[in-house]
Amino acid sequence: MPSTPRPDTAETSAAMNGAESLVRTLLACGVDTCFANPGTSEMHFVAALDRIPGMRCVLGLFEGVVTGAADGYARIAGRPAATMLHCGPGLANGLANLHNARRAQTPVVNIVGDQATHHRPFDAPLTADTEGWARPVSVWTRTATRAPDVGADAAAAVRAASVAPGGVASLILPSDVCWDKGGRVAAPPPWLAAPPVSPEAIVHAARVLRSGEPTLLLLAGKALDEGALAVAHRIARATGAEMLSTTASSRVARGRGRFTVDRLPYVGDMARARLAGIRHIILIGTPAPATFFAYPGKPPRPYPDDAAIHVLARPEQDLGDALQRLADELGAPAIAAPAAPMPAPSTVTGPLTSESVAAMLAAHLPENAIVVDEAVTFGRAFYPGTIDAAPHDWMQVTGGAIGDGLPLSLGAAVAAPGRRVIALQADGSAMYTPQALWSMARERTDVTILLFSNRKYAILQHELANVGANAGPTALSMLDIGNPDLDWVSIARGMGVEAERAETTERLADLFTHANARPGPFLIELIV
Amino acid sequence: MPSTPRPDTAETSAAMNGAESLVRTLLACGVDTCFANPGTSEMHFVAALDRIPGMRCVLGLFEGVVTGAADGYARIAGRPAATMLHCGPGLANGLANLHNARRAQTPVVNIVGDQATHHRPFDAPLTADTEGWARPVSVWTRTATRAPDVGADAAAAVRAASVAPGGVASLILPSDVCWDKGGRVAAPPPWLAAPPVSPEAIVHAARVLRSGEPTLLLLAGKALDEGALAVAHRIARATGAEMLSTTASSRVARGRGRFTVDRLPYVGDMARARLAGIRHIILIGTPAPATFFAYPGKPPRPYPDDAAIHVLARPEQDLGDALQRLADELGAPAIAAPAAPMPAPSTVTGPLTSESVAAMLAAHLPENAIVVDEAVTFGRAFYPGTIDAAPHDWMQVTGGAIGDGLPLSLGAAVAAPGRRVIALQADGSAMYTPQALWSMARERTDVTILLFSNRKYAILQHELANVGANAGPTALSMLDIGNPDLDWVSIARGMGVEAERAETTERLADLFTHANARPGPFLIELIV
Repeated sequence: MPSTPRPDTAETSAAMNGAESLVRTLLACGVDTCFANPGTSEMHFVAALDRIPGMRCVLGLFEGVVTGAADGYARIAGRPAATMLHCGPGLANGLANLHNARRAQTPVVNIVGDQATHHRPFDAPLTADTEGWARPVSVWTRTATRAPDVGADAAAAVRAASVAPGGVASLILPSDVCWDKGGRVAAPPPWLAAPPVSPEAIVHAARVLRSGEPTLLLLAGKALDEGALAVAHRIARATGAEMLSTTASSRVARGRGRFTVDRLPYVGDMARARLAGIRHIILIGTPAPATFFAYPGKPPRPYPDDAAIHVLARPEQDLGDALQRLADELGAPAIAAPAAPMPAPSTVTGPLTSESVAAMLAAHLPENAIVVDEAVTFGRAFYPGTIDAAPHDWMQVTGGAIGDGLPLSLGAAVAAPGRRVIALQADGSAMYTPQALWSMARERTDVTILLFSNRKYAILQHELANVGANAGPTALSMLDIGNPDLDWVSIARGMGVEAERAETTERLADLFTHANARPGPFLIELIV
Repeated sequence: MPSTPRPDTAETSAAMNGAESLVRTLLACGVDTCFANPGTSEMHFVAALDRIPGMRCVLGLFEGVVTGAADGYARIAGRPAATMLHCGPGLANGLANLHNARRAQTPVVNIVGDQATHHRPFDAPLTADTEGWARPVSVWTRTATRAPDVGADAAAAVRAASVAPGGVASLILPSDVCWDKGGRVAAPPPWLAAPPVSPEAIVHAARVLRSGEPTLLLLAGKALDEGALAVAHRIARATGAEMLSTTASSRVARGRGRFTVDRLPYVGDMARARLAGIRHIILIGTPAPATFFAYPGKPPRPYPDDAAIHVLARPEQDLGDALQRLADELGAPAIAAPAAPMPAPSTVTGPLTSESVAAMLAAHLPENAIVVDEAVTFGRAFYPGTIDAAPHDWMQVTGGAIGDGLPLSLGAAVAAPGRRVIALQADGSAMYTPQALWSMARERTDVTILLFSNRKYAILQHELANVGANAGPTALSMLDIGNPDLDWVSIARGMGVEAERAETTERLADLFTHANARPGPFLIELIV
């Protein structure tokens, strides 16, 4: 017998407030996870989340944790999470990791509560240019203005975030729009597939590859999926082309039995050496690369001046389809999957070096792990050294804004229960968002953190040497983060995360296997 | 015998690069303290600081520490410090506390390194809308474009920051402008006194005060200096007017033997009750007040609808002079300084409550201390309860962006060697910028932190109740920061700061007097 719908469950109801229509619309659109750091102006949103079941809410104690976690979540889940931030300054605290999400082209539904529309003219203390701060990281920015429209605004945000290749959609939510009645639940937006590349682009790329001139396939985004990489290898094998991924990638499938790909080096001189002699670069989901920074007298591009740039697929196009059609056009034969060598010896001994840690990881990485790499200088051997580790996904900080590793790890773990997340984390970078540890403890996420304590901004010591300066005490004091030494075991325990210290590779391996076998987060500090 | 100037000490030199001219100009302008979190694009700036003596550099491990410390420094020093931030995302991490500095009208020379001018078109990963992010918090924003102009740009920034009432001047510094030669040191800008208010404003305010109708003097900024407050008391005594400061103030002189002033309450209902019956509000250095947030069905203004608003002095005018001239116009007689009562009993016993902690502070506050108040809900009794404490300055978070207390304390301590800084710090707020503890340890600043662990966002629990919601588990999970409990003793020790826990007022008093008698920072966690 049908029952009369209760007002608060109806799709449209004069009794439903804007916040409730927001939550119901998000759920209808498949957004069921919200990373939150709320404030006063978000209390009706919080109350709506409380009344309406279905949204997993994860509290972050700092907004950079919230936004980085939303990025990590979507990279693994393949669909956006929502954020909940508090006014302009709360958004500001989350911008650096939204910048990274923008560079990763990650879908994020970025919700920022704000002053009531009628309170804004009074310029109360927290009033700020919320839209102005949101816009540079967002593919879409809108301030909701009426409760009856909030549902449609939310659906539009989900759509904007999800359109290929993905991006940050910022919905600013004045508090009165949340508390006013008349909310209406909006229907989910239609799914929009990434458009295919033109036949001409396929033919052109095939012609370049058949030229016999040295050619590089530069891969990014969904071209780094397991299936797409396999097709790229067919193309490379058939044509003799080289392959690289961009320097920093959102997510790369790798490990034993998978087709692998190396990265374009971060350091400009190394990148130029790697690409010496290349005559053609075929871009698949990425613009032409530039070095992270300029240096006096050095070129801005890591490839030869006379290399020709060709676009097979723009980031918003269907990258996997483009590679498949290109392989077909070339008649590239199928190739066997790479051999899956036996695991490396399980015991690695001796002092902690980048290479010994890499060997330990190769031997002990859990099956189907998610590796989040913000190891910076000490991590130089990790990527090449783990090619034969158990199959895994590798995630990086994409926008150069450090302080993303721990938040990405939190979000990835929330997205993938049952998979172990391995955070390879430099100490200087970790200090931007250490609050992520607390959220990991609260959510009991399966994250093992290898915290590399070199007690300096080592990358900046290299950079200072690069500018030809002999570092004196003032410069060193700004690049040295010892004095006092950070004690990561204490910091982690202070935030509820179990932690131990390793000073040898044997001890590290013992702790690593112990940590990975138990539920919840565990931090291992490595004095390096 | 005059010696030939070395190229690197000359005022103008083809051999001087832009960064050197920047540092020399800042020093010539009296800016001799730099709070820094550098990155690659700032390496020439770092190298210049190394070569040129005179600048005290204080490293922060997160940009919110840097900007909040620059705010705290200038509130005490009365002149700006410089910041050094890294590209758009580094600036973004510092925006929330620059927002607070903007609301405090604090002079800050905010220097943001960025991509080389010729590298910007390549949209390298860290490229962002640095100017767009800076502008909403800044009174002045400029991107330097040529090495020969950097000195003049820096002098203009110091001038813009220092013009009354003070503000954030953001100078964006592309790396090539730093490394290019041809730097020129600029002369310090002329000192600009705050302009006086018009005679008509004095006469008008006097007429209002003589009307006999209930009148409030609302004071902000330099009207809260010791001398200006004494004059305001003369006016109030002579006319029967009431006096209040704004809800959150940059710095208030208070304590035994000083004329005191209460604050406009934060909570709208309490503010309205306090101002019931007021017919005139005379503004001295502040716009008319609004509540921090809007609530359904409540007025946005904390004063009666029929109250008339009068402006004695705008924030950029000479507030002390305006009060003095108003007192003269009124013929307000001199009054004796308040009695300096004997210190309260030095032993306060029993459980930790807001009132018992306030009594302990009143008894034991060190002479000439600087109190930084981010105690939020637990701190309700602190301000009224410390009127008779030893003379001190009281600083607050002015823009509502929490996470400013520890950075303000760091900066104030750097500005005032020999004065003890007492940080009254809520736990939830402290978690936004805990990295400030490390800088306090490194700089051996004399800061005693009272860390109030209530393990919840108590203010938000009140706000949730205000919106009429019965908190269920989802809502509570977003307002409860226990589970796991933060262990502040571990966190502080992990960052090199001595720390102990107090569970009674006796123990607190013992630790407080111990901490204040020794050099360097000390954190006392209070489980409340």
